[in-house]
Amino acid sequence: MSNQELINFTRGVPAPESFPLDDLSAAAQRAISKYGRTILQYGKSYGFRPLIEWLAEWKRVEPKQVITANGSLQLFDFFCSHFLQPGDVAFVEAPTYDRAITTLRHHRADALGIPLQSDGLDIDALEIELKKRVPKLFYVIPDFQNPAGMTYSLEKRQRLVDLADEYGFWIVEDAPYRPLRFRGEDQPSLFDLNADRVLHMLSFSKLIGPGPRIGFAMGDAKLLQAVARIAEDTYITPSLLSQGIVYEFLNAGLLPAQIEKLKALYAPRLDATLAALDKHLPEAQATRPDGGFFLSLTLPQGVTTEAVRQIAREKYNLNLASGEAFFPNGGGERFIRIPYCGMSLDVIDEGVARLAAAVADV
Amino acid sequence: MSNQELINFTRGVPAPESFPLDDLSAAAQRAISKYGRTILQYGKSYGFRPLIEWLAEWKRVEPKQVITANGSLQLFDFFCSHFLQPGDVAFVEAPTYDRAITTLRHHRADALGIPLQSDGLDIDALEIELKKRVPKLFYVIPDFQNPAGMTYSLEKRQRLVDLADEYGFWIVEDAPYRPLRFRGEDQPSLFDLNADRVLHMLSFSKLIGPGPRIGFAMGDAKLLQAVARIAEDTYITPSLLSQGIVYEFLNAGLLPAQIEKLKALYAPRLDATLAALDKHLPEAQATRPDGGFFLSLTLPQGVTTEAVRQIAREKYNLNLASGEAFFPNGGGERFIRIPYCGMSLDVIDEGVARLAAAVADV
Repeated sequence: MSNQELINFTRGVPAPESFPLDDLSAAAQRAISKYGRTILQYGKSYGFRPLIEWLAEWKRVEPKQVITANGSLQLFDFFCSHFLQPGDVAFVEAPTYDRAITTLRHHRADALGIPLQSDGLDIDALEIELKKRVPKLFYVIPDFQNPAGMTYSLEKRQRLVDLADEYGFWIVEDAPYRPLRFRGEDQPSLFDLNADRVLHMLSFSKLIGPGPRIGFAMGDAKLLQAVARIAEDTYITPSLLSQGIVYEFLNAGLLPAQIEKLKALYAPRLDATLAALDKHLPEAQATRPDGGFFLSLTLPQGVTTEAVRQIAREKYNLNLASGEAFFPNGGGERFIRIPYCGMSLDVIDEGVARLAAAVADV
Repeated sequence: MSNQELINFTRGVPAPESFPLDDLSAAAQRAISKYGRTILQYGKSYGFRPLIEWLAEWKRVEPKQVITANGSLQLFDFFCSHFLQPGDVAFVEAPTYDRAITTLRHHRADALGIPLQSDGLDIDALEIELKKRVPKLFYVIPDFQNPAGMTYSLEKRQRLVDLADEYGFWIVEDAPYRPLRFRGEDQPSLFDLNADRVLHMLSFSKLIGPGPRIGFAMGDAKLLQAVARIAEDTYITPSLLSQGIVYEFLNAGLLPAQIEKLKALYAPRLDATLAALDKHLPEAQATRPDGGFFLSLTLPQGVTTEAVRQIAREKYNLNLASGEAFFPNGGGERFIRIPYCGMSLDVIDEGVARLAAAVADV
């Protein structure tokens, strides 16, 4: 089996066939022709002003409530610089995005994980921790969570923002997958529920492509002023050439059709993953998301992710992500994340079959 | 006089009329058409591989000795993350680039300034400091220094890298202005003299335009591996869309003509600045650089930059940069930086005339 073609169930990358190349090429022409002297020059650390205004109108906030950066992870790094001193505590979900844990550790902060349930945070566990200490910030991904593939209920969203008010902490709401709902109804974002306590981050990485590196955040204007100073001291200006090009794409009204194209591409991949799990690995407990990039599963009792990973890699040429890397304080021994968006239907079925074979071999 | 048009002698921005817009527009077409699926996707934190290879060939190093980032200030930030713990000492020139001081302070490092003379560092002062403590890194700008407009002699270059060997510290050589020599002969770079102790940073901000945010560094491959991990943890990937476009520009062989165009544009602006100083302000001591973006002057005894700044702003609508901001440990009370590249010849003469009038009014 080891000369099978490699399959990666590791990183959540978008499908390259989804990139709107022709439209971006035309957008690049227009951007350089119309704004060349601005987007080739230094500018404000907030980003390209027409893009800021477009985003503000899209999200119905004021331009001063919007800041862009070279990807939303870089924004999270700025938020950490703003909020955290070495030794401070930040809360995250358990499991959470592994790069968020890494970023917190770079800032010498303690990342404390609050367990996730199928409908959001374990609020009881959160209240117990809050009575012990109040974090400077709480990083959450309420929609189609990475890595769990779970979405918060309305009730848990409201409880979380109420606790943020009661205890006085900031929420960083990372929402890159939120626009990719394949079925069902949107819940309000945490920012919709309480704009005074929430910094809402979005990105075009999953909607247009990661290569331009354009993330943005909206939130309290005064706080974003402080973040803009940190950004200026780090790189002066984000990539205005990229921003001009993506702005021209957005301003031509092309985003809604692009999102529909992505849903039409990704929804069958999610369905194929769930069908393959039902067929090959019915004993694992899988999340069944309504959108996004990921689902996760818990292996049967007694079977560890590390054991499966090793067999999958060595015998079946299938790479899996570590389960434990998503858990800041231990756990995840039987946790597996499956990123389905970047794979064709055939590869998905074959990958899940290999995963099931590796589980059976443990 | 206060309804005169505003003149800024503040920031060192390139002339917008120098941006090669048509060539970049064509490069964008080609880049998206040839590499769209790569430059719209995530990639290595080192940057776009064809660009890395082009840079390595240009600079006659191995590709593994090259890393790109969203501007060279961001690279300096990564170097600081790699080398510095809070409380560590870094050496800089006095005066130095004000944003380098800010970056060091973000990393809670102590920035110690070694005085500059007309031909480079005051080596005697450096040796006295080295006997007291050895810095983790020494940030220098040996060619057409910002803000002084001074260039190191060959002898002082050699002394500095020899001291780096003897005492065991790393040199970060920032060289954004080095390709913009209007007359005279290049000296070897510090990296040319000792590649084992020097991280050499270059940028396309002053050669093509700042908006794409493309800086790069070359140096020890193993050290750059560690820096690449920090970069990955900060933003995953630099802006590959920008990098693909600039790569296509470079690979079409357009850089040499672009540099010649810049020299033809900027050399007369330097000459006009020097002529205006001779005419309006002969009592100030000015550096007389052979290239780059800046010259600096020392005001006559008894006249402070702050006093001149206030009068210039209020009475003559001329903005000057603070002198003291370029000095990490005090000094610069009579220091003025003049960035001449972004201004037309008329504006330069008028600006220096206003500066002289403000000096006369003190």
